[in-house]
Amino acid sequence: MPVFEHHVFICTNERDATASRPSCLPRGSKKLKSAFKDAIKEAGLKHKVRANESGCLDQCEHGPVVVVYPDAVWYGGVHVNDVEEIVREHLVQGNPVKRLRLSESCINSEHCPHRP
Amino acid sequence: MPVFEHHVFICTNERDATASRPSCLPRGSKKLKSAFKDAIKEAGLKHKVRANESGCLDQCEHGPVVVVYPDAVWYGGVHVNDVEEIVREHLVQGNPVKRLRLSESCINSEHCPHRP
Repeated sequence: MPVFEHHVFICTNERDATASRPSCLPRGSKKLKSAFKDAIKEAGLKHKVRANESGCLDQCEHGPVVVVYPDAVWYGGVHVNDVEEIVREHLVQGNPVKRLRLSESCINSEHCPHRP
Repeated sequence: MPVFEHHVFICTNERDATASRPSCLPRGSKKLKSAFKDAIKEAGLKHKVRANESGCLDQCEHGPVVVVYPDAVWYGGVHVNDVEEIVREHLVQGNPVKRLRLSESCINSEHCPHRP
């Protein structure tokens, strides 16, 4: 079996409540990881697609944040209710979910209006 | 600034010492992450390349394991002494380091001789 068709990284970083930037874990990203695992299995993609926890992906203002490789498609503000759609549309059909994608102009940009 | 040119995920998963499979953290992967961060900065790639901790990448017998996206290049048995070479050869020059790459036949394969 080759490498993963898709590798989904879900930020589960947790910052202190007093930190200047928010973090993904308090916004439910652990449940998100479980939801991805379940939906991937349900879609028959086990061993082809992997859902992974990751450390801080540095797009903290858009959390919970998910990045899908090798496509390098970034999603922000992902809720467990969005997972089935991402799996069905993106991971099965190959069509990233536009309504959840992070704008490239906001990724790694100090000028994104979401940045403090 | 666009998305990352390269996104390096370093497994920092830790299993119980009695687990049937090994894990990457006890084999030094936290130091590996720091070494990648330092070498990336030193190479002038800060903001272009990101070194990220990840949960279990499921190639546990080959740890410490590192995967570089969007290339989907997997490295196994990575030591801090290898980091400068990976950064220089792969992340700067674009040439993955052959001697450290995991064979595709061993990734996600139950038939890899490294698997228990």
